[in-house]
Amino acid sequence: MANASSLVRDFTIAPVQGGVTAPQGFRSSALHCGIKAAPSALDLAMLAADRDASAAALFTTNLAQAAPVLVSKRHLASTGGRARAIVVNSGCANACTGAQGMADANRMAADVASALGCDPEHVLVASTGVIGVNLKMDKVVSGIRAAIPALARGKGSEAARAIMTTDPFPKEYAVTVQMSRGSFSVGGMAKGSGMIEPNMATMLGFLTTDAKVPSALLHRALRESAQDTFNAITVDGECSTNDSLFAMASGRSDVTIDDDSYSTLLDAMLAVSHELSTGIVRGGEGATKLIAVTVHDARTRDEARQVARTIANSPLVKTAVHGADPNWGRIICAAGRAGATFDVDRSTVRVGGVLLFEHGLPHDENSPDAGAHMKQTDVRIDLSLGTGGGAAATIWTCDLSAEYVRINGEYRT
Amino acid sequence: MANASSLVRDFTIAPVQGGVTAPQGFRSSALHCGIKAAPSALDLAMLAADRDASAAALFTTNLAQAAPVLVSKRHLASTGGRARAIVVNSGCANACTGAQGMADANRMAADVASALGCDPEHVLVASTGVIGVNLKMDKVVSGIRAAIPALARGKGSEAARAIMTTDPFPKEYAVTVQMSRGSFSVGGMAKGSGMIEPNMATMLGFLTTDAKVPSALLHRALRESAQDTFNAITVDGECSTNDSLFAMASGRSDVTIDDDSYSTLLDAMLAVSHELSTGIVRGGEGATKLIAVTVHDARTRDEARQVARTIANSPLVKTAVHGADPNWGRIICAAGRAGATFDVDRSTVRVGGVLLFEHGLPHDENSPDAGAHMKQTDVRIDLSLGTGGGAAATIWTCDLSAEYVRINGEYRT
Repeated sequence: MANASSLVRDFTIAPVQGGVTAPQGFRSSALHCGIKAAPSALDLAMLAADRDASAAALFTTNLAQAAPVLVSKRHLASTGGRARAIVVNSGCANACTGAQGMADANRMAADVASALGCDPEHVLVASTGVIGVNLKMDKVVSGIRAAIPALARGKGSEAARAIMTTDPFPKEYAVTVQMSRGSFSVGGMAKGSGMIEPNMATMLGFLTTDAKVPSALLHRALRESAQDTFNAITVDGECSTNDSLFAMASGRSDVTIDDDSYSTLLDAMLAVSHELSTGIVRGGEGATKLIAVTVHDARTRDEARQVARTIANSPLVKTAVHGADPNWGRIICAAGRAGATFDVDRSTVRVGGVLLFEHGLPHDENSPDAGAHMKQTDVRIDLSLGTGGGAAATIWTCDLSAEYVRINGEYRT
Repeated sequence: MANASSLVRDFTIAPVQGGVTAPQGFRSSALHCGIKAAPSALDLAMLAADRDASAAALFTTNLAQAAPVLVSKRHLASTGGRARAIVVNSGCANACTGAQGMADANRMAADVASALGCDPEHVLVASTGVIGVNLKMDKVVSGIRAAIPALARGKGSEAARAIMTTDPFPKEYAVTVQMSRGSFSVGGMAKGSGMIEPNMATMLGFLTTDAKVPSALLHRALRESAQDTFNAITVDGECSTNDSLFAMASGRSDVTIDDDSYSTLLDAMLAVSHELSTGIVRGGEGATKLIAVTVHDARTRDEARQVARTIANSPLVKTAVHGADPNWGRIICAAGRAGATFDVDRSTVRVGGVLLFEHGLPHDENSPDAGAHMKQTDVRIDLSLGTGGGAAATIWTCDLSAEYVRINGEYRT
């Protein structure tokens, strides 16, 4: 335990408007180019730094990786973590599209680069939507041509809408960080609704900051903040071909991030990522509730995560929450098959803080407080494994509703 | 490869009526004792051998194990695989019931033993239903008292109904095996509808045979047949506190099973177990289709199973099948996150035999044949991983419907 004075933060974090364009040095645009059928549906977004910026990204671990993922990975590797812009389309994932798909993703980067006057390797690409269908490149090419002159600050909200597929609402957030030696901002936007499971899901996330951050440090902050946010959410346990989380740092503020101030950047990125990632769960396909499953006193952090994830993906737990039933039996059952080591007789289950299971037996299970808590939009499930190990982790998920089945029985991803 | 003549089976297997009482030497009974509220609902079943029989069982691997599981395990261990009877109740799982639950399960065995005139260790116990609630032991005790004199052959169907909880129909099956040196039968019944996933689920299975089989060989046949049947099904990826699969051999036929004839017993047990276990999936909560997911040409059998299981548990695949959408993209996506090693560009996806994905690209994906196949009750998904390893495995699952959500949002397990 550190001494008390080191726990006092010497900075403040406050929300601000503007999403990805809240930090200085970034502009964005959004338009309908014609990938989506509905004439008013935005389907192309552009995010550009005024100059070459530090960049980092995390990509899906699925063996099936879409062309834009392969292209963005290669570009980041070849620039050593620098980028000027990210072009994103929704409505078509450009996944399982073979050589044509690779050519299309490369063309998107090349067209943006030529308009901005940078190398194609400094442009990153992301796509989301239907799998196994080629991009309508004539539409995309005209779209890119129109999107470049439209780039502006204050258009973060439009970009956040343009990257949506089945999302019921856009996800954007930004914070400003006040330090003794100056201030900087972190902004972000994300999309994702179905096929959501850590590592990554059909989830796209974009973070921007105007702090000066070396690429390696930006990558570390992205990885560490994602572990407890974007990689700690699940809607349906699925992990897609296209999931990507990008970060860009313009360096336009007066703050330079080094090892000493790293934790300040991390806190700000956590704040933005938490808001965006829980937003994805709240807007999960058919979701009516956000469920925070926290496992306490596991032997290790990995085991805590493993148990929390098994509970969060259990269809029986998710339907019970949907029906506002504080069903501790299903929680214990899911935990028992998670593969972690613990003694059921030493574990406790709480729903909304109400103790429902202890010493291997139900406890006050008909508490009206637990039932009332389950009827709210935000539900808390706390399971202590009683191992003495003290490790804890939280996974956020949503309830499973008949609407999820309707959406996925009818929509072709 | 064995020579051709050794592939000719020197026995025939044919279905017969009678369920668990089809083999000689077994009697059963079933009645309503009062655990379930509905006055006509059967909730107690008894299965008894005329004399001490060989016995074997497989139990849930969940860390949370119900009292009847613990008692049956201990009894089988203490007798070295012998049993006279199994008593089963539905409506209450006697799980998470502490010391009282253990006392109740022991009492059930003791009462049956005293009425049959055997040691309590020769009686096995199984329970299924609500978790965390104590058995109404006065009802159970009177039920057992009435069930003993009611034991009779030809009552297999009633027993199969008495073990049901949310099952939409009873599952029973039996076969007779004709060998050159005699004949024997294998019968069985099973229950299970929700919380179904291998190793085991809220699934109870009971197999009987009148072959003479040493306990060790019976246990081996049970384990090997379960691997491709009861442990190769999933409804919702859940695994419960009570899952048990029992086998008893009365030895009343003229056939003795030894190492040479072992494969004949295995084939008969596979035939019965396949029928019962796929029956559980057909009757899965909210299920309208039986889906056979076969993974071919994996590096190992374990990897084939792992990929097949990930596809079979994918809510996106299950909802696509529900909507009769031959969505190969979701199949490839699920396979890609299963943790096995393969090259997506070398894999193929077939639905109902129709090739939909090859060389990393869609193939004939709008084939009306694939769509028509998906509208049937029995759906086949075949994925070849193209590793050259040649290993294959099948997992059976059902579609995910809005009805599943309704059942589990309202029913308290």
